Amino acid sequence: MTARETEPFELDEAECLRLLASQPVVRLAVSVAGEVDLFPVNHVVDGRDVLFTTAPGSKLVELTVHARVVLESDGWDDAEAWSVVVKGVASVLPEAEVARAETLGLESWSATPKPVWVRVTPTRVTGRRFARTDGGRA
Amino acid sequence: MTARETEPFELDEAECLRLLASQPVVRLAVSVAGEVDLFPVNHVVDGRDVLFTTAPGSKLVELTVHARVVLESDGWDDAEAWSVVVKGVASVLPEAEVARAETLGLESWSATPKPVWVRVTPTRVTGRRFARTDGGRA
Repeated sequence: MTARETEPFELDEAECLRLLASQPVVRLAVSVAGEVDLFPVNHVVDGRDVLFTTAPGSKLVELTVHARVVLESDGWDDAEAWSVVVKGVASVLPEAEVARAETLGLESWSATPKPVWVRVTPTRVTGRRFARTDGGRA
Repeated sequence: MTARETEPFELDEAECLRLLASQPVVRLAVSVAGEVDLFPVNHVVDGRDVLFTTAPGSKLVELTVHARVVLESDGWDDAEAWSVVVKGVASVLPEAEVARAETLGLESWSATPKPVWVRVTPTRVTGRRFARTDGGRA
């Protein structure tokens, strides 16, 4: 392997969205009054948007106060690692769109009822893939 | 399984740190002037602290501007899922402590030189584990 091959390879948006859709969990970061919070959520990719559900609780309150959010997904095997970061704007899905959202195959792992659908509309989608230099020891 | 068993089970700090140490990647969220950023990093647990390395670049700049950070780790199998969130204060490790840090077994996957060690000292460590209600279909 040459030194060049171990450098990060920037992924295009289609590949980022494909990788995002391949994972059952995405991490959601929000900031309220300078305080960051970070949650794992089950999600589904709908075109360029990322949808998830929530209870009428803390996550939703934070999203309402500060609608800019960041989502992250990653994965690895012995040879390489990748990560995708989506910056976007969160909004509660209008009631008229909920029926269609419910056909998208979102699998929530939690027993907590999460009737509120949230859509994240990306403003920036970035991703990278790189060869692991440790040879998969970790 | 009873309804009660599917409710989230809060993990104590020792279990949170054990789970955090079992993973090769943690997600780091920082906020600068209200804008959140989110990065996956290779980390190592040192007592209650979490250490990682970085290049003298964007992550480090952000940490310097706003030293409060959040770390997240998660995992799942067909039966259950868990997540751990650490809120803490980041600081650059003093030069005198770097030699010891280098014995802790951190495996960085990236070819990018990352000579700067950062320590996150937790102010709050929380975690939960719950049975997956989807039966591991996702």
